[in-house]
Amino acid sequence: ANIVVLPGDGIGPEVTAAAVDVLRAVASRYGHDFHFREHLIGGAAIDATGSALPAETLAAARSADAILLGAVGGPKWSDPSTRVRPEQGLLAIRKALGLFANLRPVKPHAATLGASPIKPHLLQGVDLIVVRELTGGIYFGDKTRGDGDASDLCRYSVAEIERVVRHAAALARARSGRLTSVDKANVLETSRLWRDVTTRIVGEEFPDVQLEHQLVDSMAMHLLARPRSFDVIVTENMFGDILTDEAAMLAGSLGLLPSASLGEGRGGIFEPIHGSAPDIAGKGIANPYAAILSAAMLLRHALELEGEAQCVELAVSQALDAGVLTADLTSDRARAVGTRAVTEAVLEQLE
Amino acid sequence: ANIVVLPGDGIGPEVTAAAVDVLRAVASRYGHDFHFREHLIGGAAIDATGSALPAETLAAARSADAILLGAVGGPKWSDPSTRVRPEQGLLAIRKALGLFANLRPVKPHAATLGASPIKPHLLQGVDLIVVRELTGGIYFGDKTRGDGDASDLCRYSVAEIERVVRHAAALARARSGRLTSVDKANVLETSRLWRDVTTRIVGEEFPDVQLEHQLVDSMAMHLLARPRSFDVIVTENMFGDILTDEAAMLAGSLGLLPSASLGEGRGGIFEPIHGSAPDIAGKGIANPYAAILSAAMLLRHALELEGEAQCVELAVSQALDAGVLTADLTSDRARAVGTRAVTEAVLEQLE
Ligand SMILES: CC(C)[C@H](C(=O)O)[C@@H](O)C(=O)O
Ligand SMILES: CC(C)[C@H](C(=O)O)[C@@H](O)C(=O)O
Repeated sequence: ANIVVLPGDGIGPEVTAAAVDVLRAVASRYGHDFHFREHLIGGAAIDATGSALPAETLAAARSADAILLGAVGGPKWSDPSTRVRPEQGLLAIRKALGLFANLRPVKPHAATLGASPIKPHLLQGVDLIVVRELTGGIYFGDKTRGDGDASDLCRYSVAEIERVVRHAAALARARSGRLTSVDKANVLETSRLWRDVTTRIVGEEFPDVQLEHQLVDSMAMHLLARPRSFDVIVTENMFGDILTDEAAMLAGSLGLLPSASLGEGRGGIFEPIHGSAPDIAGKGIANPYAAILSAAMLLRHALELEGEAQCVELAVSQALDAGVLTADLTSDRARAVGTRAVTEAVLEQLE
Repeated sequence: ANIVVLPGDGIGPEVTAAAVDVLRAVASRYGHDFHFREHLIGGAAIDATGSALPAETLAAARSADAILLGAVGGPKWSDPSTRVRPEQGLLAIRKALGLFANLRPVKPHAATLGASPIKPHLLQGVDLIVVRELTGGIYFGDKTRGDGDASDLCRYSVAEIERVVRHAAALARARSGRLTSVDKANVLETSRLWRDVTTRIVGEEFPDVQLEHQLVDSMAMHLLARPRSFDVIVTENMFGDILTDEAAMLAGSLGLLPSASLGEGRGGIFEPIHGSAPDIAGKGIANPYAAILSAAMLLRHALELEGEAQCVELAVSQALDAGVLTADLTSDRARAVGTRAVTEAVLEQLE
């Protein structure tokens, strides 16, 4: 398999290197042939080429079996007057590859309950997955900036809603059969369309799936008050961005959460949901668990190697059980380990 | 003072009745003259007049010194095919009265830490206030609905941002001097304008206020991970809707959180941030604390009776300390009391 690696900025290179090490170990253990090719994206690409998504990167991504991404952005490129932003590279590649379904699973691990701001008894048994629409809505609508005002258009077509809801409903069917759709139908027209289409698709094509609708403001509460009661959650782009970062707190740290961005075909982008964390970049202390778990999602969704994916997830679980924790996961600073130690612990478990 | 009461739907009538009782007690104790006049809004107004905000209600609201509101909405009026929605009444009155600054304070009380999903040690000393822009953004932009799509326009003018940021910065100056502005400047044009205007206004007019910018997704985490580090938070309408419901979980229950919606002049709307809770309406078990605390905000902001406002807040605090808790605030069902018992406990403390 041909895997394109886009390390990006900040801690991106460190955590993707850890994930690549794990994928290499999987390849050698199971006799697979993985080829890795690095390309530029984000701020690193701006510095080298002037573009946040160079044509060469996009071409490589299009022909890849899967893409492993680190993170983009940093203070160096966030001056308000800048015309080219690292984030544009990320948004552009998602859009260009048609990766409309962003899967963000949240399953708190016993060893990291202490790191969560949420009371442990609420976290027992939490196992949810958010399916965030990733190529539509206010992220991609027309934008204007005048002397005295600015605007962003939030637009959704029926087809855009249908395909992501189908993806989420199929996932719900394969899990507990429960689907929660999140919108703001009491205020937004796009949300009313979202609710109509969701109700119709699930009713017609997934009659065995139990669908409930939640308003985004209520959902921001329920996610904390009764996280166990959710299984698959589907929502539009902007709400998904906010709710998944909120949901990350259930797992204790953003540093534990992987994601998969999928389209109609195989392939996809696999990336931790954390950012580039420029403040700790280059220090060898970044938490690579989310990148490693993203590699597991890559094995599962892009390469259809379910056994291998579970093997990586088990290894992560065992490393966490063994107390191999980075600084974001433990209040016991003296016990905190770095990126390399986590990677080795996972590799050791893999054997 | 001439106070218009808009009970609305569901538990609205019960909790506003409690708040009115408290205001009457304040009036008699301090020798004030408060006149209360009830008017229709929301679903109740739709049933009676066909409109969610009858002209008569708006006229009364315009001439009032302050407005006490309950809640609007319910399943009866939420059929997707309905043309008139209860929420339209609420949005219309906010807009018509120019109430652009929605203040939502969050200060967890020792007696209700148990009701919060957040670990108690994180809640100690939390005392923050969100200033949500209330009459602009995607709530009020043009909406379209075609056969195959729908859209909502998010628009902000410089003037709209300036006035709410001034309000928030003045509040920050009167408190700890720290202001956090929340946007999504890495994606939205309106957010980049928001960030520019906020930076300019605070820099020029409030040089003593310490301003930081946060992205809305990060903020959804920080609010849980380190709530104590925030003082005044200012943000646009939609983000404010989501973040304040999330922040409500810090206080343990939505049933404890009041709000004030203010404009350029005196007056304003004072309402609990909870909804109409149709499932428990009419049972006498609704939590009236948020409505009573909204009455305290009415005394403070609309009538400039700071001493009286503090007196009500103290009475609430003492009632909570005494363990007078509704079902949403305690897991000990046998100890839970109803609306009337809370009201009497607060009235008793007021004496
Ligand atoms: C970097 C940013 C543009 C991006 C987003 O908002 O989609 C990030 O927050 C994410 O969630 O992947
Ligand atoms: C009822 C609804 C329209 C309203 C809003 O979204 O503003 C409510 O959620 C609120 O926060 O006051």
